[in-house]
Amino acid sequence: MEFPYGQDPGAPVRSGIPEHGRIPKYYAAKVDLAALLEELGEGGVLPTERELAQRFEVSRETLRQALRELILEGRLRRAGRGTVVAGPKMAQPLSLASYTEGVRDQGREPGRHLVSLDRFRCPPALAADLGLAEGDAVWHMERVLLADDERVGLESTYVAVERVPDLATDFPPDSSFYAYLRRHLGIDFGDADERLETVLATPREALLIGTPGALPMLLIHRLSRDTAGRPLERVRSLYRGDRFSFTTHLGGGGAGG
Amino acid sequence: MEFPYGQDPGAPVRSGIPEHGRIPKYYAAKVDLAALLEELGEGGVLPTERELAQRFEVSRETLRQALRELILEGRLRRAGRGTVVAGPKMAQPLSLASYTEGVRDQGREPGRHLVSLDRFRCPPALAADLGLAEGDAVWHMERVLLADDERVGLESTYVAVERVPDLATDFPPDSSFYAYLRRHLGIDFGDADERLETVLATPREALLIGTPGALPMLLIHRLSRDTAGRPLERVRSLYRGDRFSFTTHLGGGGAGG
Repeated sequence: MEFPYGQDPGAPVRSGIPEHGRIPKYYAAKVDLAALLEELGEGGVLPTERELAQRFEVSRETLRQALRELILEGRLRRAGRGTVVAGPKMAQPLSLASYTEGVRDQGREPGRHLVSLDRFRCPPALAADLGLAEGDAVWHMERVLLADDERVGLESTYVAVERVPDLATDFPPDSSFYAYLRRHLGIDFGDADERLETVLATPREALLIGTPGALPMLLIHRLSRDTAGRPLERVRSLYRGDRFSFTTHLGGGGAGG
Repeated sequence: MEFPYGQDPGAPVRSGIPEHGRIPKYYAAKVDLAALLEELGEGGVLPTERELAQRFEVSRETLRQALRELILEGRLRRAGRGTVVAGPKMAQPLSLASYTEGVRDQGREPGRHLVSLDRFRCPPALAADLGLAEGDAVWHMERVLLADDERVGLESTYVAVERVPDLATDFPPDSSFYAYLRRHLGIDFGDADERLETVLATPREALLIGTPGALPMLLIHRLSRDTAGRPLERVRSLYRGDRFSFTTHLGGGGAGG
């Protein structure tokens, strides 16, 4: 016996029929499209909008709404003038390991582009987080995250100038900040608190990452400490929601309690 | 010195000006609205659309786009005929603890409504996950998650009938499944693997949870094992992206590797 309503746990689209029995037309087209994507397989090229609208007997506008959702969800992607079936999302572990290691573990080549590096006087909330006095000098480093040259995220790091005095001159901004801290300053990470939420990309973020505006993103706020328990950095990492998922292993200790 | 572009780490809207200097009109209105929300504070009632459009000198259509995004992000919510400033998102720990405990820890009253409880023959992928033979009997229990009577999520649990034979008759579906397993069957959770992603609500999900369609949601896939390491259940939990964030503590061991 099959699961009704496509509700089996591995279903690629959690489809299902609303109990009132009315299915929006765009959604019926989306379910038809999802079946077609299965047939085509990763990298398969979608027929033209005109052909698809005819095949599924819907208007072009209705078809576009279905395509738009599948693109936002990362199941389709634009490639040149066509639209192709996307691969699975990258599964990045929630861990103290750096972005660099996480991406490399998945057989992709990590990279980073510097957007900006600035020195600020520390505002009150950040001072409390980092154990600094208000007005102390802090760095703000903003970098675009890359995987195989594809822009996949945007990362802002806030760290006291006192901890990393030569950041502007010493650190190659396309490399791993964590590796730099370890090798050049002997600083190791002890632990971190993270909070993860979904947000919409702002126009600036969309421009920097090269996504459509208002794409759902995964935003991770991190506050990390060194092995002595001293606050080290505050990081805000924004990942494309259509390209990333995050994994974690929960042990008996009840992480996060 | 202040952070330019609103890029300070605690900024409620990660606003910022695109480098090309062009800001979409709706986004400028959104930034103005965000400042107004700060002034009004949680529970504050927003002026009418007409007043706001006049105040910010934008069209009603432009204003509505800004309001729509603030609602999708959970910063505003509809209340009766008006729109009010929403409270902060609930911060639920990623842990082996149940939804019930997580919500209670935040001073809210958890609840669950049964949507459906069905018995199936186990399909291949689920059989592999749960260590069952294809065709073995499994339960699928689907419940709406509540916090203080507000619908905030939807949870599907898949568990072998052999492990929980009397689920249909014995278990009060508005209570904690984990507490039931512990108290009535002596089953304790050992560990779990989770994968978290953002998806758009399907029409059926939107109807069950009572959200606008295509609201960004947080979807958590869990496979949990008992203390003997034997697979116990597969769970798919869908949380309103506008109402929830998830927290985790990363230790030196490097959870998830």
